[in-house]
Amino acid sequence: MTDSLDQITSASNPLIKRLRGLERKKNRNETGLFLAEGARLIEQAMAQGWEIETLVVSNTGADRDYVQALCAEAVKSGARVIQVPDRLAGSIARKDNPQAVIAAIRQQDLSLSDLDPSHPGLWIGLYECRDPGNLGTILRTADCAGAAGVLLIEQCCDPYSVEAVRASMGSLFDVRVARTDFAAFNAWRKNAALNIVAASVNGDTRHDGVDFVQPSLILMGNEQAGLPPHIEAECDTLCLIPMRGGADSLNLAQATAVMLYEGWRQRGFS
Amino acid sequence: MTDSLDQITSASNPLIKRLRGLERKKNRNETGLFLAEGARLIEQAMAQGWEIETLVVSNTGADRDYVQALCAEAVKSGARVIQVPDRLAGSIARKDNPQAVIAAIRQQDLSLSDLDPSHPGLWIGLYECRDPGNLGTILRTADCAGAAGVLLIEQCCDPYSVEAVRASMGSLFDVRVARTDFAAFNAWRKNAALNIVAASVNGDTRHDGVDFVQPSLILMGNEQAGLPPHIEAECDTLCLIPMRGGADSLNLAQATAVMLYEGWRQRGFS
Repeated sequence: MTDSLDQITSASNPLIKRLRGLERKKNRNETGLFLAEGARLIEQAMAQGWEIETLVVSNTGADRDYVQALCAEAVKSGARVIQVPDRLAGSIARKDNPQAVIAAIRQQDLSLSDLDPSHPGLWIGLYECRDPGNLGTILRTADCAGAAGVLLIEQCCDPYSVEAVRASMGSLFDVRVARTDFAAFNAWRKNAALNIVAASVNGDTRHDGVDFVQPSLILMGNEQAGLPPHIEAECDTLCLIPMRGGADSLNLAQATAVMLYEGWRQRGFS
Repeated sequence: MTDSLDQITSASNPLIKRLRGLERKKNRNETGLFLAEGARLIEQAMAQGWEIETLVVSNTGADRDYVQALCAEAVKSGARVIQVPDRLAGSIARKDNPQAVIAAIRQQDLSLSDLDPSHPGLWIGLYECRDPGNLGTILRTADCAGAAGVLLIEQCCDPYSVEAVRASMGSLFDVRVARTDFAAFNAWRKNAALNIVAASVNGDTRHDGVDFVQPSLILMGNEQAGLPPHIEAECDTLCLIPMRGGADSLNLAQATAVMLYEGWRQRGFS
């Protein structure tokens, strides 16, 4: 099997350079590709119909049965499969001990019109979320809680960054994610009669006092600044997650989990 | 003010070497010290009575009013205060743009006998938590939810690592943390009649069906392996956090937040 793979051994090979470049957002945007590392993640992507553009196999990994099976499936789906020395795999993954396989995967850019607002799950909106670790973690939690999808509103970090992909633990491939500006988002959700429930320090209702059984979208603000007043003015409910006096604030992903599981609890976890 | 500070300019100065060494657990254990970066965190530590052993001020930071106030307070409390070039501050903080102040702080190692099991809050036990980012995030959430304290059971990561301190956002200085083995922990909680409610894939009760109003400790397992059977056998309740079919698992810190806020909700957030 491994004999049939293209071998690349030079760090200056244009394909290797292009893959290494996917660490940067500019290059991800230009190519429409992003990196995912590890057989489990890549299998999950393929199972969900994501297009593997290139599959990179390390020399150490190439003899393993599960890697050979993954290669065969990738070739069948039209991917280019290459084998590289471990140090080149490490240079693409930016770590000393890379996993046996790394894939360049085609981004799926959904727009609002691709989303069905009548989905029975809760929606999540993130307004200017800036930390890719938070974003990936929120995708993972949204996946676990069967959320309808995650809307990235205005200037959010890139869900296809290495850190977000890693923190999502594969949930990026399962959860519907769309990027939008606030005006388009607000028109979309009004048309669908989705209530916006925003977590806010200005909230006057405790989060567990909100009716999440009606069609709802949980809106979370930026890590540092929360939601600006003009956005809060458009929300149906501003609610407060209780905190002991003197405590600072919850991490954004933690606060989102608390909101989402309270909403889902009210729906009987169905 | 800045004239009175000891100036150190050489990277080979023994004090600088010792501070740089606090990145490693071995050196933290030997010295009983750890690093915290930034005026807000250091002020929080001092306000909570933590001992600042050394305060490092960067040349750029030394002229700022809030830094000078912090230095004065640190000197008064008996700390050694030194001023260093920005590049040395960066070498201690292991980053290019360090904050204006970095402190070496004395660890507070609590044992079980330092904890009051009749504290009205919920307790959290972490069994072999290995990710310092998770641990720091859990400390932050425990602080927000007024938890009684966090018990680190068996081989957990170090709460004084740079990553845990950073993720805790200062909550490390507010939350009572003790390290223990399981046998001692179990004796302590039995003596105090604390129920152990563990999150587990083997749970037969939904987490929101558990009675958290009684004195309770939420026990969370290792990121990869969860709780081993002999530990689960000692728990009063194994509960399940609902997840949609096919989803993988929640991140440990996210799962802990869901458990803790459900427990606190049942207690009326009081």
